Amino acid sequence: MGANSKMYYDKEHTGDNMINAYAAFEAKGPLKPFQYDPGALGAFDVEIDVDHCGICHSDISMLDNDWGRAKYPMVAGHEVIGRVSQVGTHVSHLAIGDVVGLGWHSGYCESCKMCMGGDHNLCSTAKGTIVGRHGGFADKVRAQAISAVKIPAGVNPATAGPLLCGGITVYNPLVQYNISPQSKVAVIGVGGLGHMAVMFLKAWGCEVTAFSSNASKTEELMNMGAHHVLNSKDPEALKKAAGSFDLILSTVNVKLDWNAYVSTLAPKGRLHFLGAVLEPLDIGVFGLMGQQRSISSSPVGSPRVIADMLKFAALHKIEPIVESFGFDQINDALEKVRSGSPRFRVVLSR
Amino acid sequence: MGANSKMYYDKEHTGDNMINAYAAFEAKGPLKPFQYDPGALGAFDVEIDVDHCGICHSDISMLDNDWGRAKYPMVAGHEVIGRVSQVGTHVSHLAIGDVVGLGWHSGYCESCKMCMGGDHNLCSTAKGTIVGRHGGFADKVRAQAISAVKIPAGVNPATAGPLLCGGITVYNPLVQYNISPQSKVAVIGVGGLGHMAVMFLKAWGCEVTAFSSNASKTEELMNMGAHHVLNSKDPEALKKAAGSFDLILSTVNVKLDWNAYVSTLAPKGRLHFLGAVLEPLDIGVFGLMGQQRSISSSPVGSPRVIADMLKFAALHKIEPIVESFGFDQINDALEKVRSGSPRFRVVLSR
Repeated sequence: MGANSKMYYDKEHTGDNMINAYAAFEAKGPLKPFQYDPGALGAFDVEIDVDHCGICHSDISMLDNDWGRAKYPMVAGHEVIGRVSQVGTHVSHLAIGDVVGLGWHSGYCESCKMCMGGDHNLCSTAKGTIVGRHGGFADKVRAQAISAVKIPAGVNPATAGPLLCGGITVYNPLVQYNISPQSKVAVIGVGGLGHMAVMFLKAWGCEVTAFSSNASKTEELMNMGAHHVLNSKDPEALKKAAGSFDLILSTVNVKLDWNAYVSTLAPKGRLHFLGAVLEPLDIGVFGLMGQQRSISSSPVGSPRVIADMLKFAALHKIEPIVESFGFDQINDALEKVRSGSPRFRVVLSR
Repeated sequence: MGANSKMYYDKEHTGDNMINAYAAFEAKGPLKPFQYDPGALGAFDVEIDVDHCGICHSDISMLDNDWGRAKYPMVAGHEVIGRVSQVGTHVSHLAIGDVVGLGWHSGYCESCKMCMGGDHNLCSTAKGTIVGRHGGFADKVRAQAISAVKIPAGVNPATAGPLLCGGITVYNPLVQYNISPQSKVAVIGVGGLGHMAVMFLKAWGCEVTAFSSNASKTEELMNMGAHHVLNSKDPEALKKAAGSFDLILSTVNVKLDWNAYVSTLAPKGRLHFLGAVLEPLDIGVFGLMGQQRSISSSPVGSPRVIADMLKFAALHKIEPIVESFGFDQINDALEKVRSGSPRFRVVLSR
């Protein structure tokens, strides 16, 4: 909001409401304590006391400026669970004390075709919680109220953080593409995102295959809900799966032999990318054409779908598997994510 | 059918029913008169007296062995319009004298998941009319009766041939993806397939953009139903169209700057390939992810959708623009297609 839009702020800004955060001051540098003044609370905004905040791989990508969008000092963190501590005067659907979650987006234009159609996550001017503003590695975070979603009873606040970004990223395609419980669905890469995908797909009613190159994970994946575990490094396993899957969710961010995976799609099947692979996809048209296959990708999900996902998680007792760290261990926690070794997701807790 | 499946044939084979065709005897060689004995008529088959047969670019690809699937002598031709001259004993829905069309497929297994779901064109054992059997460049052609579709009143048999392959190829995606008349749709490559796409899309209610590198075609494209014609060789035109199209149908078979076209897709938009591009697509994930875009491809359509398309064409007076040749001019006609110069489709007529 501009300086002249006084009506959008609740009170004169007095500067007595500093936020205590952990910020990076340069790409790949350690996070250090950092205080900032968030200004007056917007009339449509809330302030959230942060109780837990997941660490997502895109926090690392932003902190390390992998995408060239970083500004320092930067406060990352966009898998927030906390309690509403202030509400703007125009906010009626949230109250002080409500337990809410905040994910990748912290604001939407609310007037474009996407927002008006319920696809807020596709709003071209949606604000990223950690893009050009400060996120959840802090004691408080601000956001447009409609981007904060109530955490329903039955969802454990201590482990729910990863649902707000990683979880909705894998859940949203099931809604967008109206995936039938009769479908056969495979997951490539069963790490942070993938393990949530397996749990959601099992509860969705699908026949679930996990592709994993790590045989030691097989039992754990079956316990999560996978009906089958295929060794992704075995070309014979891929050949045997030819024409099988109605949907494949790829959660990896490295280039694989995509044409081999396309050949495992059933007619009308879809290979959907949730990992930010930087190399072009290099996929042949003939592999798509004969069987009317699709390739696609999508970003997180709308507040409405996040709310539905949280209810679905509560009903089916779906809980991300996390390693917990204190906020004062934030650099150790980040290193765990950078190294790719968490099983399966890292959460900071107060 | 095997030699022992006598019950599937109507009568002993007497060899008195020779078919007079034009066959290629080597890749890229001229077609020459060729007689063959089709054997006894299958009980589920029909024989069609060929009145008209379109020439499709895939006839050239097969005759020239571009796809490595050719066997010689080869009788191409898979956009047949003719009259039923014989029906097998188990055929009840067609009668002698019915005017029918026959396209890329001349038989289906009728028992797989795809056939049982109405997606016969995705049947993995569907028979290609000119793949390992003889097609419509002849006085007669045989086919499984369910693959021959009745030509409704209001459709001109002399110009309808191209609808049976080229036409259904561009029409089928509108059905498969449930394209709304509210959609903005663009067509890349306004030749044989593309000009039919423009006409169908106009009648479907869509806002239609034709990408063309040939400014002299503009008026003709507007007359066909395009609301806008964009110069595909003008990078500024592509930039201005950013985020516009719900669907792009690409009918070309050469590599273009696909990422530039992806950027012209609206959120949830789809770039759908109908041309057999041999080079990998080389598309970046980030261009798909932010706006939940899809890439896909599909082959022709099922007999059910062909029948619906023909009724739609009759209702909206949609007629392919063709150049006609006699069957005895077949080599000249093929050369016209090979050179890429027909406006817009070539049909052989008796």
